[in-house]
Amino acid sequence: MASRINPISGFPEFSPAQQLVIDNIVRLICRTYESFGYTPIETPAVERLAHLVAKGIEGKEVYVLKRAHGLDDDSDAALALHFDLTVPLARYVAQHYSSLTFPFRRYQIQPVWRGERPQKGRFRQFYQCDIDVIGDGKLPLSFDAEIPGIIFKLFSEIAIGDFTIRINNRKILTGLFASLGLRSEDGVRAAMHTIDDMEKTSTEEAVRRLRDLEVAQADIERLLLIFRTEGQSNEDTLSLLRSMSVNEEFETGVNELSEVVAEAPLHVMDVNDPIGNSCIDQTGKLAPPIGGNPRARYASSFRIDLRIARGLDYYTGTVYETRLNNNPKIGSICSGGRYDNLAGAFVDQALPGVGISIGLTRLVSQLFDAGLLKAPRATPARVLVAVQDRSRFQECVSIGHRLRSAGISTEVFLAELGLGRQMRYADQKGFDIVVFGNAHELDRKCAKVKHMRSGEEKEISLSQLAPFIHMQLE
Amino acid sequence: MASRINPISGFPEFSPAQQLVIDNIVRLICRTYESFGYTPIETPAVERLAHLVAKGIEGKEVYVLKRAHGLDDDSDAALALHFDLTVPLARYVAQHYSSLTFPFRRYQIQPVWRGERPQKGRFRQFYQCDIDVIGDGKLPLSFDAEIPGIIFKLFSEIAIGDFTIRINNRKILTGLFASLGLRSEDGVRAAMHTIDDMEKTSTEEAVRRLRDLEVAQADIERLLLIFRTEGQSNEDTLSLLRSMSVNEEFETGVNELSEVVAEAPLHVMDVNDPIGNSCIDQTGKLAPPIGGNPRARYASSFRIDLRIARGLDYYTGTVYETRLNNNPKIGSICSGGRYDNLAGAFVDQALPGVGISIGLTRLVSQLFDAGLLKAPRATPARVLVAVQDRSRFQECVSIGHRLRSAGISTEVFLAELGLGRQMRYADQKGFDIVVFGNAHELDRKCAKVKHMRSGEEKEISLSQLAPFIHMQLE
Repeated sequence: MASRINPISGFPEFSPAQQLVIDNIVRLICRTYESFGYTPIETPAVERLAHLVAKGIEGKEVYVLKRAHGLDDDSDAALALHFDLTVPLARYVAQHYSSLTFPFRRYQIQPVWRGERPQKGRFRQFYQCDIDVIGDGKLPLSFDAEIPGIIFKLFSEIAIGDFTIRINNRKILTGLFASLGLRSEDGVRAAMHTIDDMEKTSTEEAVRRLRDLEVAQADIERLLLIFRTEGQSNEDTLSLLRSMSVNEEFETGVNELSEVVAEAPLHVMDVNDPIGNSCIDQTGKLAPPIGGNPRARYASSFRIDLRIARGLDYYTGTVYETRLNNNPKIGSICSGGRYDNLAGAFVDQALPGVGISIGLTRLVSQLFDAGLLKAPRATPARVLVAVQDRSRFQECVSIGHRLRSAGISTEVFLAELGLGRQMRYADQKGFDIVVFGNAHELDRKCAKVKHMRSGEEKEISLSQLAPFIHMQLE
Repeated sequence: MASRINPISGFPEFSPAQQLVIDNIVRLICRTYESFGYTPIETPAVERLAHLVAKGIEGKEVYVLKRAHGLDDDSDAALALHFDLTVPLARYVAQHYSSLTFPFRRYQIQPVWRGERPQKGRFRQFYQCDIDVIGDGKLPLSFDAEIPGIIFKLFSEIAIGDFTIRINNRKILTGLFASLGLRSEDGVRAAMHTIDDMEKTSTEEAVRRLRDLEVAQADIERLLLIFRTEGQSNEDTLSLLRSMSVNEEFETGVNELSEVVAEAPLHVMDVNDPIGNSCIDQTGKLAPPIGGNPRARYASSFRIDLRIARGLDYYTGTVYETRLNNNPKIGSICSGGRYDNLAGAFVDQALPGVGISIGLTRLVSQLFDAGLLKAPRATPARVLVAVQDRSRFQECVSIGHRLRSAGISTEVFLAELGLGRQMRYADQKGFDIVVFGNAHELDRKCAKVKHMRSGEEKEISLSQLAPFIHMQLE
């Protein structure tokens, strides 16, 4: 059947099976963020256009709202859909400053909109999953050190393969650029972009662009040496940086980076930690780490990379990027950094912050496309109760209630259709278990239970149904 | 400190403490919908304006998007924010028809936008939480009977006081109106609104409006008799309806309503059901019902009310409304019904459906205002680890990891501040438990644990920390 629908490009929409996978990832993100004390907030989809413009919207192609049949009040003449969650956070913190407790740890998972020309992998609506912590006046570097630990825990649990969290400090770059005579805003920005692009372009291209910025040949060579530290150990990179004498800005950046890199591993559980080990869980077992000692894995997943610049202008210290080792083409799946003053446009207080953002829609789309995420089920229910004898409908519904009470999501097949149709339904939606409600077994207070993947069938007494199914689902 | 923010009216924003409560309600809604096999979908915030217009947008004041610096392609010239989740569902089902399995049970929790003139209790952006089930060609009345059972379970668990789910069938009304000579679309609509408004206006007003529609005095009296059946038992109302001879439409409506009302209680667990009782849960206990036998409570919460008409034109059979018994002014918190053909504008197949929608933002706003929902905590973490001796910071961070591994969300206080400041922070954010990290106790592999509400303090060995805190949090 042909429908008369012309899909809107750039506004992704997922199948029910995919949406279930996405929702599970979102729940894992929420749980992880919350386990560290980040609290959820939500801001309206719109902000005043003037607030968005104040933070710079070049290239973001903001969508402005207008009413279809304009009521003639001007109250929303200049409302626009937010293009990120950072500007809304700034406005939120400024507006509610007096009722918030600082340091304010918040997370926010919402769609954002950008009216870009649609093309593959570019979306006009996509989800961001942000955490940020905002200090009142100051915010110690411990917060910079904690965030990659949270991200590490999260991506380890999503289990999308090995990844590397890369860290840098913008002051190292701005210090370097200043030492080369690049001080104008445009010059620094162009140099940042050159460094940021080094991974996708060639060394020759970087050299050409730095020459265009009138950087001397000797300086270019020195820069390339520094930016080729990729693959070195964090210790070696820090030694190199400490050996250099550039300027105060550079030195501050090196010191900050050293401090953050030194503390970061603390924020990942070490199963060999004697203090830690003595805090066992409720059941007396230590939760088993996935894939070995997390802190040992972290050591190889957390790297200084001096090329990380982050395009956005507002970062002033630590910057992060995260890439999948086996799928570098996906680009950074999680980026962020430190900013000195979140809400300067709105309030007089200095509100420094540090945060990170996962571009969820882009990430899951690419993982689906690459086959790295599977979407095997089109129902959140694990069990279908098939009504074989319509005269026993009431008992079938009752089985559904009791399985739900035992925490097993269960659909009872309500339509009066033959068993063949019901089984096809179970198969197409991907139920794990079908319970058959027929007189023969119900008369003996039993039901036949079919495990759909193995095809195994077993007659189970109703009193054992829930525990049996729990076991089957494990 | 005064911020330079002028809030946008009609776009609600909640405090962190309120947002935590809202998120918990949303999770409960998801869990309940999913336990019955409704699968989550999400549609983009925008639809083509032409699609929205096709379904009637009078009074909805649609927001259209335009780009701030218009790229000059016309591809999104006519995109608008959706004003409900039903039109997007229709478009979704039509567009993905061939890859969906029917009956298609979906739920959808998203904001919707209406450019109404802002006034108290009216929002321009608000969340709807919809469930619908769509049949391919036909959909039996069992689905109409199941939905109020789901809503009953949900609102019982949200625990916002007694409520009444009211049910009617539009065919009863349209049959009656036709018998009075009201057949024009405008006439029927005006009569529907009159009936729908009877609860908030007076009988006199209803009489006046029916007279304006040229309904004869005798007929008006007969109508009022019918619409005064409120408070009667469902059986008495059905008897009255069955005794009336009106027309075929009316009779079909009465039969449908009878069938749905007869089956509805099945879809609520009956703890006295011998079949049900024999399905015990995993741990061998039957999940205790909240406040007695649910089906017995349902009997008094589920009422026929012939005045329920639902303003929207597309309902063709069953209609539902739900009100809080002690807060009738809040109005209907959950409404919906049956429609014969969801997606007629898009596809040729008949796609009948039945569904219901919770207006979440309006509901929680009013419950917060009325003090019926409390928001005591501004953090999702239950435990704060206060760092009393900075030299033991590493061990404090380690305690955080291990509590999290045991499923206890825990924030470690990272900033170097005195204990007084840390306790004020714990108090303001509403942590339940503070664990003190100081040398005196850590040296003996212990920590002091304070229960914030009771003020009780106890020294606990690190190995017993997680189980002890689990007990304290119960």
